Amino acid sequence: MNNRPSLTPLVESLPATVPFVGPETQERNRGRPFRARIGANESGFGPSPRVIEAIRNAAPDVWMYGDPENHELRAALAQHHGVAPENIAIGEGIDALLGLIVRMYIEPGAPVVVSLGGYPTFNFHVAGFGGRFVNVPYDGDRENLQGLLEATISENAPLVYLANPDNPMATWWDAADVTRFIEALPETTMLILDEAYCEFAPTSAIPPIDVSRPNVLRMRTFSKAYGMAGMRCGYAIGEASAIAPFDKIRNHFGMTRLTQVAALEALRDQPYLQSVVDQVAAARDRIGRIAASHGLTTLPSATNFVALDCGADGTFAMRVLQELGHRDVFVRKPMGPHHDRCIRVSVGPEAEMDLFESAFAEALEAARKG
Amino acid sequence: MNNRPSLTPLVESLPATVPFVGPETQERNRGRPFRARIGANESGFGPSPRVIEAIRNAAPDVWMYGDPENHELRAALAQHHGVAPENIAIGEGIDALLGLIVRMYIEPGAPVVVSLGGYPTFNFHVAGFGGRFVNVPYDGDRENLQGLLEATISENAPLVYLANPDNPMATWWDAADVTRFIEALPETTMLILDEAYCEFAPTSAIPPIDVSRPNVLRMRTFSKAYGMAGMRCGYAIGEASAIAPFDKIRNHFGMTRLTQVAALEALRDQPYLQSVVDQVAAARDRIGRIAASHGLTTLPSATNFVALDCGADGTFAMRVLQELGHRDVFVRKPMGPHHDRCIRVSVGPEAEMDLFESAFAEALEAARKG
Repeated sequence: MNNRPSLTPLVESLPATVPFVGPETQERNRGRPFRARIGANESGFGPSPRVIEAIRNAAPDVWMYGDPENHELRAALAQHHGVAPENIAIGEGIDALLGLIVRMYIEPGAPVVVSLGGYPTFNFHVAGFGGRFVNVPYDGDRENLQGLLEATISENAPLVYLANPDNPMATWWDAADVTRFIEALPETTMLILDEAYCEFAPTSAIPPIDVSRPNVLRMRTFSKAYGMAGMRCGYAIGEASAIAPFDKIRNHFGMTRLTQVAALEALRDQPYLQSVVDQVAAARDRIGRIAASHGLTTLPSATNFVALDCGADGTFAMRVLQELGHRDVFVRKPMGPHHDRCIRVSVGPEAEMDLFESAFAEALEAARKG
Repeated sequence: MNNRPSLTPLVESLPATVPFVGPETQERNRGRPFRARIGANESGFGPSPRVIEAIRNAAPDVWMYGDPENHELRAALAQHHGVAPENIAIGEGIDALLGLIVRMYIEPGAPVVVSLGGYPTFNFHVAGFGGRFVNVPYDGDRENLQGLLEATISENAPLVYLANPDNPMATWWDAADVTRFIEALPETTMLILDEAYCEFAPTSAIPPIDVSRPNVLRMRTFSKAYGMAGMRCGYAIGEASAIAPFDKIRNHFGMTRLTQVAALEALRDQPYLQSVVDQVAAARDRIGRIAASHGLTTLPSATNFVALDCGADGTFAMRVLQELGHRDVFVRKPMGPHHDRCIRVSVGPEAEMDLFESAFAEALEAARKG
């Protein structure tokens, strides 16, 4: 057979790629497991014990499809945020929702404004639907609000993406700055405001929920502070007319039943969430002290990870990363210009932080010997 | 604000719709739960006890993302089917994979050949990517192989969909007929051969796995015989070059970690699968006897559901369905021409079949009076 079905020209043009190489892949390539899994901004503090219990209780029910309307969870999230269910769209992680949003607003060739070195999975979706990247360099170690705004206006872009707090740098803008940015955007531009890490941020960094503007979608997740990355549950908060189109194209039966149960229970256990946030803050400080003990600095962080400035260039930081790998510590690093001097360390429980402390000392020494 | 972001013309044109109204939605509208959930072809026999145990054991691990390569599950499925991992693509249910396949092959306006009255979720995705439906009426109560073939050739269609066994009619073609159909297809047409129900079918209905043709994707699922609809795990089997493009566009981190664990364990417990298949066959026969006791017939079934001919027209069958609902029995029904004379009853454990037996007698009487 010489002929075969033809992919669309767009899909044909795409590389087969994964936005992130998973730690399991690295473990298979290395031939041995990591001892500290602090590279994917997962929460080593785990989900609430009440969530674990809820999953165990619901395990026999998995023969039933989940409710395609996510009714209970949607209602609970609406109440939690003081909005209506019509202001909430739930999906299989923020990643899945990002793909749907790009599909909604971007035709091949349309401009999408992003920060250069920003979230790879969003870029994966933009490429996947043929969007044209308008890359805006960071302003130092923060996303460049003014630059993003100017690019959006000059390109008349249908879509702009901003993460606050930012990944991979962990930095943030104050709510007042974000609000000014929102108010200055063209009414015809949809802003994706990715707040995956907002629970870890100072209150002053997160604008109050306001669902009056049809051009803002705020993205939240159970993957980070709630410790449920493996359950795949994210949601968008927005004005009702910005939320409704998800129903046109989403995978209605896509949520697992256990995810619905687990997210509902996680939301109910706010004291546990607060305890994680407190532990994360303490662990961030510890990583700062570890860095300082080697004469290095960390960037201010409003997330559950820390960008640690290895004190030299990107090549050196990459060497530190590799040496950490040799010592069975999984971390990742920013790759954008200037940011590549850093490694990105997810905070974790004390045992992982102990491992990091000793492995980092050795890795740094080995990298310095070169 | 008078302006707002513009959806793409294609997405703007789509209705906000769900392919199936879930039983939970119906329960909310009714104000009370169903007593027998036998309308969505779920498996009331549940997942293997080993699966439940595996989920419970893995519950504390949900803070970790699943392996984006689905490596272990992919390897196990490959071994199970006697193919290579490169011949397997795993996704969040067949539904998600169907969406990806349409996206791969269909540009707006391109023809997609389907059976009139076939699987609504596939049609949802075809509409979602702007495909043009070429509807082929069934041949009696079976999909029309010759008609599908002729339409595919005359339209030079990039995509044709065939379910064997069929949903909603439960009928099937023998493997030899399916194989002839495959061999007669244009090499440039991708066939989606949906085998969601294949475990319930006679061996003679399922062609041997053959991954030599780049224009066939065979869809399998853990939702039906494995009793894991709520876990969202489906997969495609195909020639390596037909499988590789999934990596270009899929949601790499989309599978839940518990789903990966559960599917692996389900696959290992083949004796449980066989016991479910046996129970399903017995329950199918029982539904046949229930129908016969009222002078009615059921269609031959190679699935875990039965199309029960209510003996009159679509209006009458709809009345029977509604009367069953009044008696707290959830079933669905085919809506296509001629098929609408039937209701579609999922088989379940004895308690649900008992409920169905008594409710059906009453419903039939009420509908006949009606």
